[in-house]
Order: sequence, then structure tokens, then C-alpha cells
Amino acid sequence: MEEVLDSNFEVLYPQIENAVNNANFITIDAEFSGMYSEKRLIHSLFDTLNDRYKTLKKNIQQFTIVQFGIATFRHVPFENAYKTECFNFYLFPRSIPLKNRKISWQVTSLNFLCKHNFDFNKFLNDGICYLNEPDEKLLTDYLTQGDLANILKHLLFEEEMELNEYRNQISEWMARSEQTTLKLPVTNPTLQYILHKDLRNNYNNIWTVSDTKSMSFLKITPDKQEYMSKQENNLEEILLNSFMRFSKIFKLLSSSKKFIVGHNVLLDLMFMHQQFYKPLPDSYTEFKNNIHTLFPEIYDTKFLSFELRKLCKAEVNWKQNSLSILYEYFTTTGAFLSFNSPKIVLNEESFSNQKSYHSAGWDAYFAGCIFVKMAHVFCVKKFGSGLEERIVTHSELMSCVKKFVNSINIARSNEMYMKFDGEDPVLSRPEWLLVKLKSPSIDIKELIKKFSSFGTVDVMPFSHRCFLVAATNHNRSGAVLSGLFIWLLKKYF
Amino acid sequence: MEEVLDSNFEVLYPQIENAVNNANFITIDAEFSGMYSEKRLIHSLFDTLNDRYKTLKKNIQQFTIVQFGIATFRHVPFENAYKTECFNFYLFPRSIPLKNRKISWQVTSLNFLCKHNFDFNKFLNDGICYLNEPDEKLLTDYLTQGDLANILKHLLFEEEMELNEYRNQISEWMARSEQTTLKLPVTNPTLQYILHKDLRNNYNNIWTVSDTKSMSFLKITPDKQEYMSKQENNLEEILLNSFMRFSKIFKLLSSSKKFIVGHNVLLDLMFMHQQFYKPLPDSYTEFKNNIHTLFPEIYDTKFLSFELRKLCKAEVNWKQNSLSILYEYFTTTGAFLSFNSPKIVLNEESFSNQKSYHSAGWDAYFAGCIFVKMAHVFCVKKFGSGLEERIVTHSELMSCVKKFVNSINIARSNEMYMKFDGEDPVLSRPEWLLVKLKSPSIDIKELIKKFSSFGTVDVMPFSHRCFLVAATNHNRSGAVLSGLFIWLLKKYF
Repeated sequence: MEEVLDSNFEVLYPQIENAVNNANFITIDAEFSGMYSEKRLIHSLFDTLNDRYKTLKKNIQQFTIVQFGIATFRHVPFENAYKTECFNFYLFPRSIPLKNRKISWQVTSLNFLCKHNFDFNKFLNDGICYLNEPDEKLLTDYLTQGDLANILKHLLFEEEMELNEYRNQISEWMARSEQTTLKLPVTNPTLQYILHKDLRNNYNNIWTVSDTKSMSFLKITPDKQEYMSKQENNLEEILLNSFMRFSKIFKLLSSSKKFIVGHNVLLDLMFMHQQFYKPLPDSYTEFKNNIHTLFPEIYDTKFLSFELRKLCKAEVNWKQNSLSILYEYFTTTGAFLSFNSPKIVLNEESFSNQKSYHSAGWDAYFAGCIFVKMAHVFCVKKFGSGLEERIVTHSELMSCVKKFVNSINIARSNEMYMKFDGEDPVLSRPEWLLVKLKSPSIDIKELIKKFSSFGTVDVMPFSHRCFLVAATNHNRSGAVLSGLFIWLLKKYF
Repeated sequence: MEEVLDSNFEVLYPQIENAVNNANFITIDAEFSGMYSEKRLIHSLFDTLNDRYKTLKKNIQQFTIVQFGIATFRHVPFENAYKTECFNFYLFPRSIPLKNRKISWQVTSLNFLCKHNFDFNKFLNDGICYLNEPDEKLLTDYLTQGDLANILKHLLFEEEMELNEYRNQISEWMARSEQTTLKLPVTNPTLQYILHKDLRNNYNNIWTVSDTKSMSFLKITPDKQEYMSKQENNLEEILLNSFMRFSKIFKLLSSSKKFIVGHNVLLDLMFMHQQFYKPLPDSYTEFKNNIHTLFPEIYDTKFLSFELRKLCKAEVNWKQNSLSILYEYFTTTGAFLSFNSPKIVLNEESFSNQKSYHSAGWDAYFAGCIFVKMAHVFCVKKFGSGLEERIVTHSELMSCVKKFVNSINIARSNEMYMKFDGEDPVLSRPEWLLVKLKSPSIDIKELIKKFSSFGTVDVMPFSHRCFLVAATNHNRSGAVLSGLFIWLLKKYF
């Protein structure tokens, strides 16, 4: 897996571009700085999809994607394989003029990432920057005005202090005739821009160069033109590009119009929308339309896994359908199901570190693996076991999952799902139980507690001594009723 | 300097307690996760102290202290010295039941801390927890109910998932007869509590132990009483203590009623109030009263430095009065001023790493050093140069700064300061300039821009072709006027 950082971004970009453009499909995964802003904003089985979108939006809007994974899968027919390349991007929002950027962390998310070896020092020191479209426009407008005084006026206090420190050091250096170069640890791109502008424009005998970690100042003989022609001089463009790095990847993904695959991909899509495209709209329909325009064909492997289990009730026995459990299943006890399915071959060059869950790059890779395995099982069901002896084509595989395109899984949702290219499905969820207490000896509070303890049901007060119970699915609904009945019997009779 | 972390807190606590209780005064410093929530919430020279308090409150309420420094200073009369011990605490808010804790970072603050070698891995993996009083009460009430079902119901989704994973591993382990111990990486204190409670209460042959990084489960012969009597068993108290560690230090500082010294200490006090005491009140007066009750005698070395410069105009020539510049001044060019002042002797054991600015522990130490130096200069001014030949007493030093107690510096404030033990001083700030444009040929926008470029002045629209200008001090106000006059002459005549 390639780790993509601010310092190696420019070097790796052609490889990424190439991998995306040659892929048959692309898988994605993201790690977040948090998911719940308020404890009260939890999901309920009584939610409609519209409710759910609104709750999720409220929950995530202060959080960000801190790591993004992309794996590209290219089919090689004669080898019965998909060749894959896998990239893991650390994303850090650098400070931009006119905007005081913040990162909010949920403490449990920090713990989670710590546990899975997220490297906070890489994130902070070498994370890749991004802008969404409104911020890109803001910054572009601002820079085309080219008014340095205006930029100076909008510096934060700390930036102002830092700039003053550099200016003092520069003027001391200018006064010392013996020293021809000065190197300063200027990392803030806006301060770099200001110092470039200021010194290049106002001093005939000084030239400036910079990289992501420092800036150097050179005393030159006054034929400055030579320097100016040798170097790229559009400082505004350089500054803008340094902020736009991951946005460029996002635009590449979208414009490639390749299939996008992810596991439980709704939150990833919502975060991507707000972070690289536009703030999330209030309207759920507008959100769906935007995503559909950006990514016309999306597959959710979590949704596929539910469908697969329906189809193969006899064979499939996984307890949960998390990404790791599915991957383990298809590579061990369930391997027979996808016998003779295309191998997944990782580009050797990019196979530098240990595979591990909850690293975005690897999770994207795992999602791609189970996508191929599941598509294969659907194919076997459709074309029969002849597939054990011949190589399945990429088009055959895709044709077998085609009907699940743009169907996106919703967590804790009564078997509902979102349909991104049309009307959402009519609910098939089990009806709610209405529980009415006639015997005055039954303690309603205790009963509600008992119901809640079932975990996969939600309880809502309805009227005097009445409440509603919603269950995740039809089986569960029956189980709750019989469990409750036994408990009541034991307790009161 | 001692680095105090969650893992060595219990070992170091007696030393800290001892140092605080034997000190003549204590210096503090804090590093924050951010200071500005909105770019618009900036300080203006038109602010009253009440305005300023409100703006600061709004700005900081989502941010936290991430590192806290304490240095204790004990006078040793015969050695003409202060012995000092210095502690640097990393503070991390662990996740508590009933509350989804968050950390917000301002990107520029992250950059600032990165640059000054703040260790994010220590912060995240071994930071010390704290609660303010309302959270302490919430948690205490909650734990005294001792209702495990209630605690389970309030777990976050991620915590629930993690718990399920542990429970699966435990039940698999229980089934394996050959294996007598199981160690799991349970770090979340609430999950530890739940697993302790659950397994100790429901299984006669299982005992549980834990430290901050893991939990171990032991199969025991059923005389459990033996284990129970050997170990501290009040799990609620253990859990509460693990959350209250830095709160204990805060209570120690406050109950010691020692002088507190800090450099530019207002923000530190506001953060301490919200993080370890109570959310900041709306009323500025209530805030002042609360702080005064917690810490009856506070000295702000920034305020002292302004007073000292007024007193020693001839000798003192520092350009800025930041902590680092003052410390450098008193240890180099300004050393003669505090000749024969008490030496500052760092406890050797705690002198383990390089002194550096913007590490909270060292900044507390530096603040203490310049406090002693400045107090000495005030003494020389009062008692004359005889002090060059005899040892000054601690009471003499304190008597010379006594009049500055509880006077707290305000940044960008027109020479105002806050008085924590009484009425705020009547303003001595320069009057505002009212600029009225009669000539229609003068471009008002350009003029306002020109005024703003002076940096240390603020401009506010007033009425048609009129605006107000506020300057930081009387000198500045004159400078602005003459600067403007010259500019107008050049431009229009």
C-alpha cells in the first residue's frame, strides 16, 4: 500500500491518476475524527430516511475525514485476476487565509484510531490539504485580487506573530554582508506566499525559494530576470495548488465516472460531500441527486451482503456482516462459495506494509476483495456451477450485481435502504408493536426497560399506559414478543 | 522537569503535593487546543472589559487546556535562592458515561504545538483525565445508583461494539479449560468497570484485575473471598478517581491558597475555570469573584513588566514583553538590574530535559524566574542599592509587588487591566479620534484602510463620512495622527 503524504504527493500523483483511469472499479474507505456530536442525536428504528439523513448531517458536520483510502481494481481476463493498487491518504486541513479552520475530535474516535495505529504525527506534520468548492472559490477570488495588504489584515494573531519573527530574522540577515543564504522553517503556505511576494517585489537583490518544510532566501547579483524565468512564478497558483491537493484526487475520482464500491458507504459519501464538494444540503433529495451526479454508480458491499444472505440462507452463516468478518469469512470457512473466483493481486511495489483493518487504504482493499467474492457467488447462483471450470468475465460479474447498484445500506433501520438513482424503496420493515397495559399491577417503567434491553428494538411512549415497539426485522419482532411473554409470566404469575 | 502522565500520576502525586504545600509561591502556564472559534470574534480597542470577557468566553468555550505546567518556588534564605520543582502535565479528556466528550483544535494551534515539540502520542495515549464540578456530580450520582443496565444503555455505539468483542473473547476463553488467564487491551475505564462488575458478580470462579492499559481475567478456585479482601474493591471509587486525576491537582492548588503567578494569565484562568471548576458564567463579575475565591492572590508578570517599564524608563529597553523576551532580557543585557537577586535553583532530580519555550512546565518555570527578577528590581527602587550587598528577604520581595496583586493584563486593550479583588480601574486610555471628512475628494474607504494599516489602532464607522479611531496608548495616538497627516499631504496636495 502506498502512503500518500503532503511531501510525496506530487511524485505519486501520476501513478494514482494512471491507476484510477485504468481501473474497472474503485473502492473507497474513510476514517473520521468523529461521528456523534450529541449523545441525544442517536438513531432510532422509528426514523424515516429523511429523519436519518438530517440526524446524520447534524452529527457529522463538525467532524472530518482524517484518512482516505482508495484501491483500484483492474481486471486481467487471461489470469482470472484483478490487479489492485492501494493508496492511503492522511488528510489535514491547513490553515487558509480568511478562514479559521478547526478540527473537532470525538474522544472515542481518537481512542479507536490510536488503537488501530493511526499515526498522529504523520497526520499533523505531513497531512494533505483539501478545500471544498465554496472555499476554493473564496480563496481563488481572494488571490486574484492579489492585494497583499488585504491578506495581511486577515492573518490570525499567531500567524502575525510568526510573520514578525521571520521578518526580524530576515532584516538581521540582510544587514549581515557575509551570509548569502538564510533558511527559515516557514511551513504555513500563506506566510510563504506573503514572504515570497514581499521580498521578490521589493528587493532587487533577493530571491526566494520554498518547499513544504522551509523557505530559503538568497542574495543575488541584480540580474533577477534570470531567476524569474527559471522558476515557476505564479505564486497564487502554487499557493492554491498546495491547498487543493486532495480536492484534485476527489475531482479525479468523480470525473473518471468509474464504479465506486464501499462497505457501509453512506457516511463516507456524506463526509466526502461536505469536505470536498459542498456543505451538506438541508434537503435529503438534493443530497442524493448531488451524489448521483458525482458518482453515477455506487455499490455498497454491506447492502450486497444482506442480499447474498437472503439468497444463500443454507450456506451462509456469518454472525455479523462487518468488513473484517466478511473478509475473514470469504478467505476461510466461506472460501468454497467463491471457488475459482478471480484472484486479487496486489501490485507488488505497493505491498510495503502489513495489512490491517481500520487503516483506510487497507479497508478499501478489503471492500474490493469481498465485492469480487460476492459478485462471484451471485454469478454462480445465476449461471450454475459451470463457473468452477471456466473463467468468469468482468461483464458477467458486473451484470450479476447490476440490480443492486446505488442501493445504500442504512444502519439500525428496519431493513430500509437508500436508492441513489431513484425513489427509495417502499418500507418492508415489520410493523410496530403497540403494547397496552391493562393490569394496574404491571410497572410500565420496568416493562419499557425490559423491552429496551433487547437491544435491537426501540421503544417510544404512545399514550397513557401504552407504548410502541419497533424491531430491526421480522424475526427479531417475533423474538421480542416471545421473550417478553416469558418474562411477564415469570414476573407476574 | 517532571513529565506527569496518566501512567506515573499515582507515583508522582506525593511529590507534587509536597512541593505545592511547601512552596512560597506557585507559577502556572497552560497550552490550549485553540483560542479563536470564529474569525469575526476578534478583540477591538473599542471593547469594554465586560465586552472582552464575553468575546473571550465565546472564543474559548469549545477549546481545552492540553498541557498544564506548574512550578513551585520555595525560598531558602541563607542561600539567597528559590528552590524550584517543575511539573508538566499532559491532559486528555477520557470518554465518560453519559457524556460524549469532544476536543476541538484550531489548526494554527496544532501547527504551533507541533513546532514546539508537543508530543501528540503522549497526549493521546497517556494524557491525564479531569472533570469539572458539574461533570463530577453527574458521574458520582450515576455511579452511586450502581445500575449496570443504565450504564450499558448510555454507551456510545463504538463502545458497545468494543464491549461485544471483549465479551465474545471472554466467553470463548471461559469455554477453553486449559487456559487459566486471559489478557485483553481494555483501556476505556467505563468498559473496564462494566467487565469488572459483570464478571465478579456473576461468576464465582472468575476474578478480574486491571491497569490503565489492559484487563486480565483469572480462573480461580471458588474461594473468592480471599481475592476480594486482598484488593481494593470499590470499583465506583476507582473509576471516579481515574477520571478525577487532574481535578485533584486543581483542588490542591486552590486549597493551598498560595500566591499564583502566571504570564498574561487571564486566558489560563478562564480555561481553568471552565475545565476544572464550572462552565464560565455569563456575568463578568461572577467570573472575577469565582477566581478570587479559588485563588485569592494572583500576580501577572505581564502586568508587572508594564509597571516596571514605567518605573525604569531609562534602564529598560525591551521591545516586546513576551515571556521569552523578558527571560532572555533578565538573563543577559538586563541582568545588571537584578544584581544579587535570589538564584533560581531547579531541583536536580527534575532537571531531566532541555529547557524550551511553549512547553507548559518550562513556561511556568520562566514566569517564576522573571517574577523574582522583577520583584527584586522593584525592591532596589524602594530600598536603594544597599541590596547589592545584603540578601533580600522573601517578605521584602513580596511587599514590593503587593500593590500589583490581582491586577491582570488584557491584550490589545488601551492600557486597561482587570482587578480581581475589587473594582476595575477607571480607564486611562487615550480618547478616541473622531475623523470627519469635509473635502468630497477624499476617498473614505481608502482612508479607513490607511488607518487600519497602522496595526495598533482600530477603526469603527460612526456616521456619514465620519469614523472613530482608537489607539493602544497615548503615544500611539499621536503617531497615528501625524502619520495620517503626512499621508494626506502627499496624496491630496
